Amino acid sequence: GAGADNDLYINQAIVFIEDAIQYRSINHRVDSKSLWLYRWYYSRTCQWILSLTITVILALAFIEEPSSLTVTSDVRYRLPAWNPPCGLTESIELLCFLVFVVDVSVKSYLIGWKEFWKNKWLMAYILTLIVSLTDWIVSLSFFCKESVRIRRILRPFFLLQNSSMMKKTLKSINSTLPEMASVVLLLAVHLSLFTMFAMLLFARTKDNQQDKEWVVYFRNLPESLTSLLVLLTTANNPDVMIPAYSKNRAYSIFFILFTVLGNLFLMNLLTAIIYNQFRGYLLKSVQSSLFRRRLGIRAAFEVLSSLKETPASAQQSCVSVGALLQVLQKAEMDSRCKQAIMRSLKMRSCDQLSAAQFQKLFEELDKDAIKQHPPSPEYQSHFMQKMQFAFGHPYFGYLGNVVALANIISICVVLVMDADKQPSERDDFFLGAINCFFILYYLLEMLLKILAMGLKRYLSYPSNRFDGLLTVILLVLEIATFAVYGFPHPGWRPEFMGLLSLWDMVRLVNMLIVFRFLRIIPNMKFMALVVTTLLDLVKNLRAFAGILVVVFYAFAITGIMLFQGAVVPLGNTSVGPTNSWNIGPTTSMTLLWLTQEITLYFMEKNVISWCSADFQAEVIYDLFYILSVHLICRWAKIYFVAWWLISSVIWVNLFVALLLENFIHKWDRRCQRESLSDIEYQRTVELMFRDVLEEPTEEELMEKLHQHPHLQLCR
Amino acid sequence: GAGADNDLYINQAIVFIEDAIQYRSINHRVDSKSLWLYRWYYSRTCQWILSLTITVILALAFIEEPSSLTVTSDVRYRLPAWNPPCGLTESIELLCFLVFVVDVSVKSYLIGWKEFWKNKWLMAYILTLIVSLTDWIVSLSFFCKESVRIRRILRPFFLLQNSSMMKKTLKSINSTLPEMASVVLLLAVHLSLFTMFAMLLFARTKDNQQDKEWVVYFRNLPESLTSLLVLLTTANNPDVMIPAYSKNRAYSIFFILFTVLGNLFLMNLLTAIIYNQFRGYLLKSVQSSLFRRRLGIRAAFEVLSSLKETPASAQQSCVSVGALLQVLQKAEMDSRCKQAIMRSLKMRSCDQLSAAQFQKLFEELDKDAIKQHPPSPEYQSHFMQKMQFAFGHPYFGYLGNVVALANIISICVVLVMDADKQPSERDDFFLGAINCFFILYYLLEMLLKILAMGLKRYLSYPSNRFDGLLTVILLVLEIATFAVYGFPHPGWRPEFMGLLSLWDMVRLVNMLIVFRFLRIIPNMKFMALVVTTLLDLVKNLRAFAGILVVVFYAFAITGIMLFQGAVVPLGNTSVGPTNSWNIGPTTSMTLLWLTQEITLYFMEKNVISWCSADFQAEVIYDLFYILSVHLICRWAKIYFVAWWLISSVIWVNLFVALLLENFIHKWDRRCQRESLSDIEYQRTVELMFRDVLEEPTEEELMEKLHQHPHLQLCR
Repeated sequence: GAGADNDLYINQAIVFIEDAIQYRSINHRVDSKSLWLYRWYYSRTCQWILSLTITVILALAFIEEPSSLTVTSDVRYRLPAWNPPCGLTESIELLCFLVFVVDVSVKSYLIGWKEFWKNKWLMAYILTLIVSLTDWIVSLSFFCKESVRIRRILRPFFLLQNSSMMKKTLKSINSTLPEMASVVLLLAVHLSLFTMFAMLLFARTKDNQQDKEWVVYFRNLPESLTSLLVLLTTANNPDVMIPAYSKNRAYSIFFILFTVLGNLFLMNLLTAIIYNQFRGYLLKSVQSSLFRRRLGIRAAFEVLSSLKETPASAQQSCVSVGALLQVLQKAEMDSRCKQAIMRSLKMRSCDQLSAAQFQKLFEELDKDAIKQHPPSPEYQSHFMQKMQFAFGHPYFGYLGNVVALANIISICVVLVMDADKQPSERDDFFLGAINCFFILYYLLEMLLKILAMGLKRYLSYPSNRFDGLLTVILLVLEIATFAVYGFPHPGWRPEFMGLLSLWDMVRLVNMLIVFRFLRIIPNMKFMALVVTTLLDLVKNLRAFAGILVVVFYAFAITGIMLFQGAVVPLGNTSVGPTNSWNIGPTTSMTLLWLTQEITLYFMEKNVISWCSADFQAEVIYDLFYILSVHLICRWAKIYFVAWWLISSVIWVNLFVALLLENFIHKWDRRCQRESLSDIEYQRTVELMFRDVLEEPTEEELMEKLHQHPHLQLCR
Repeated sequence: GAGADNDLYINQAIVFIEDAIQYRSINHRVDSKSLWLYRWYYSRTCQWILSLTITVILALAFIEEPSSLTVTSDVRYRLPAWNPPCGLTESIELLCFLVFVVDVSVKSYLIGWKEFWKNKWLMAYILTLIVSLTDWIVSLSFFCKESVRIRRILRPFFLLQNSSMMKKTLKSINSTLPEMASVVLLLAVHLSLFTMFAMLLFARTKDNQQDKEWVVYFRNLPESLTSLLVLLTTANNPDVMIPAYSKNRAYSIFFILFTVLGNLFLMNLLTAIIYNQFRGYLLKSVQSSLFRRRLGIRAAFEVLSSLKETPASAQQSCVSVGALLQVLQKAEMDSRCKQAIMRSLKMRSCDQLSAAQFQKLFEELDKDAIKQHPPSPEYQSHFMQKMQFAFGHPYFGYLGNVVALANIISICVVLVMDADKQPSERDDFFLGAINCFFILYYLLEMLLKILAMGLKRYLSYPSNRFDGLLTVILLVLEIATFAVYGFPHPGWRPEFMGLLSLWDMVRLVNMLIVFRFLRIIPNMKFMALVVTTLLDLVKNLRAFAGILVVVFYAFAITGIMLFQGAVVPLGNTSVGPTNSWNIGPTTSMTLLWLTQEITLYFMEKNVISWCSADFQAEVIYDLFYILSVHLICRWAKIYFVAWWLISSVIWVNLFVALLLENFIHKWDRRCQRESLSDIEYQRTVELMFRDVLEEPTEEELMEKLHQHPHLQLCR
């Protein structure tokens, strides 16, 4: 009937408006049941469960065998890590898979059969699930004894497919690849030509004393390539040059030429290319978000305008205010926006809204919330008013900064004086007394500020919250210290009691004081600018960081599998069962973090030949035992070079490109902003580009709407 | 009289036009004698003498005591370097100073007294000369035995003041300094806060076994600062973390946080800031050059229009064609431009030129020369025409590339096969025969190309010149090899004869063949783009490189003076007189090139204490003996950190900024250019920006002309 139809239209409008708010695509089924499912799927609980599942499945790697849950990383001292019994992690995994199966079915159903075939991400999702489940069954049938677990490498895919931002970023990285590949090719040509030159230049001579360079660095093709590749990272910069330079100064020309061309020109060219490709990236992504928002709102308008109550006589389609109010009440959105829209709706005289008016109403969503601090309390007493003036004045804040600086300096002085003293000679009294005084001042400052500003206003400033929290923690620590160790007095060096020794307590207090000193940042203009840029950057970087995590995780798991059993005990030690010597995820991740240095050590230590004797990377000795030699030769080099390329060449450059983009935008409008500096905006990426964004035209929106696979518009 | 006046005007016009061509300022004296002096001063000979003098005075450092003119850098083997007798370098120096005195007097005279007082560069020039001469006298009166020679540090100033580009760049760097200083300050705050954290975190404990981190890296404030500063350069990246990480994995958070914040954020922020500041730099500098050019031409027009022969009745000032022709004939300029201007002058019907027409005539100067290749010879014979078609076809060039690639691969294969062979086992026959064949092919290719294109057309392509030159050199080498060692035959391993052994000859040939392979570059689109960008960059970088040379030179000389006598012989050696162990300029420069590593070695090796025992930096052992410990402690750290900041932080970022600027401009107009790719332009920076440049207005030009200190315009 008409009522049911009307209900459907209202529900559609609610969902479309929610889509617009969340920048979601509106291309999903729009019948009643699907809408209910859709709202359920995108409800906070459901999304939260999904995120939790992804976190759990990723975190499993740390518990599974081989795990890294030990305090020390030194295999000589660490106890064998706890390995869960077969079936425990597997059943958790199965639960996660079941959640993913539900997720993929709901998603596929909601976008419809036709769209499903076009959506490669969903297909890949299903494929990943099938492979994972098969692998899981194989694993159980071997009673968890099998060594290769493909599903562990596939896990980060679940993180990837759940974030539309990451998918978009990946697409955009993908489009930069051809140009990056060109520069990488150029680097490869540069490297191989110089390698040939080097092999000809530092060839073996008849006089064995003279060809140190050949013996150490250019013995054969792979070794020469590695030497120069590591030189490209500047990790072995002087060492590789020294034997030749020592023979004849002119040889340095070769190395300088190589470094300048490769490191200065080609590597930075990569930065330039990536920056050039990413210059428009942020703008484009914000532009497409804007389009989605306008489209959602327009779709809501269209379905509302086909409500039966609308007078059919009207030439132009329009929407009644009542219907919109009904929709707004049911839609989930920021309460501030909701109220603002309702307010302006109620102020209208006309009962009908045109498309433009409808769109205009929702512009409230794009506006930034102007944060208003609650007012200070108004005191009656003259004395209190004076107090309020004095302690609410910025100068009082500056005084606090000066005191914090004094505290830092006093700590610094004590540290310098105590640097070479034995712990037994140390007198904790001085530092204890000083800190006691400063913490009292901090407490006083906090209380006076609260008195002057009122608690609500005080807490509305983030800097005060930071300050206050640290002051309270410091106070608690100090009281705890006094409770356990008594008041400070000269020669105050009590024995160890409770959880922490006095010295540890004092250190902790000092660290917090150093940390508290960061409150000066907002007071320095340039620093504040830099810090806000960095914070913005962190927001924009989430997608990039996500992709990095995905790649990092996959590499780490691959590393665990590649280097399984590769940790060879050294002769002079005999601890633990051999199976605890596999590389755990933490060690694998550390290996990746140290890529450059590992390549260097591999190269430095096996001076005579890559694949012969037992060599020891002395410096990383404590960290982990040595990967056995045959594995290094076969895979490790390629593995680490690939990771170096991805992490330190490509990712760092992407990062620099984004930073440049962000910073330059910010810097350009610094002057503008300065006039408004007393109003704190909650800045978003969208706002940064607001004046450059193009509004989508009516035709574009309507064309897109008519292409909607499930929505049949009446006209 | 009128004739003399006319001559003066003509001469003024000539000089102004020459100023315009060279982008020089026109603010100099304009009377007859001064004009003659001005043209003499800016004549090629004079400027060449000046450049030579600057080169000579800078190069003196390599000959003066302590000199570095030895082949090996290893003090154990090298002979004492030749030290010139007292008075030799000093008299060369005096000659140079005299040239500079002439230079500064002419310059001061030419710009006039009033302008002189405003010109800080000239004042500094005179001051430098006075200090240098005083120092020179002191030096001679001590019979060259004095150790501190201030004038040596001042020398690079002569290079600096002679280049207007460098002065401009310096000004521009100067204006970026405040913002750079802010970031450096931020870095300093970051560093000091983390140092305090580290000192509190890795404090000395009662258990001596546990505090390895404290002993090695965070013993006291200076040591902690150094550890973290070096970590900022990532030079000691894993090592500094290992002891703590080994104790507890969680400590790695501290180091990761420090590296990410400092290295990824703050360091790259510096790049962003410098890029942001330099974004307009190239454009601005080109714009001011354009203004100088237009101003010079306008000044020429104004003086020519006041010639007596001009009809006084004319309302608008104008210039007769005859006068201009007279000026053009005498002015020194590119003959192509001169002819083009004369041609268009002669084609004019009217005898009078207005200001706009005058300006328009000289726009020929801004145009890029379209390089036209001479035509191919036209053969009568049908056979020859076919030959010409076949060998003039691009495919023949591609075939040549394929053959060159095959040659490279064959060399590579031989190198890999011979890698582990003893020199006595090596059979040179195979490589000799192969190279012989390939060189014959190269010769044939060259001859056929010359046949098809004619010698002139062949030589007009730079790639052909490169190719041909290398082919000829290869041929000569090959013939020389045959002449000395006979034709190759199996087991061809003759004894050493002549200048080079057969093996060295073959190696040299192979290196040239590898080098010749670079001819493929123009055939690959992207590579060609990159290479032209790099070449453009090199042009634009000259000023920056000059400033780097100035700073590098000053630092190197300071290093020589600081570390005088600091090279301490090791116990087990006894060679040469001690005075030859001073650090020469080459060693000093090498030290600077290795800054980062030196800091690292200093830090790594003196594990127990900075300033106590005799420590040896083993890896740099062969390069130079150890700087004695007390000097390192007092000065070396500050010296090397300062140089690191200037070279690797500031200069590299400037370089990246320029590269970004250049590359993005180039990339943007790649599409445009592709349509014109068959015409080779001689690209200049001016052309790159041509469509963005603003023409100066008539009013601006006239206002500037009326401010001229020496030229009185009639109207």
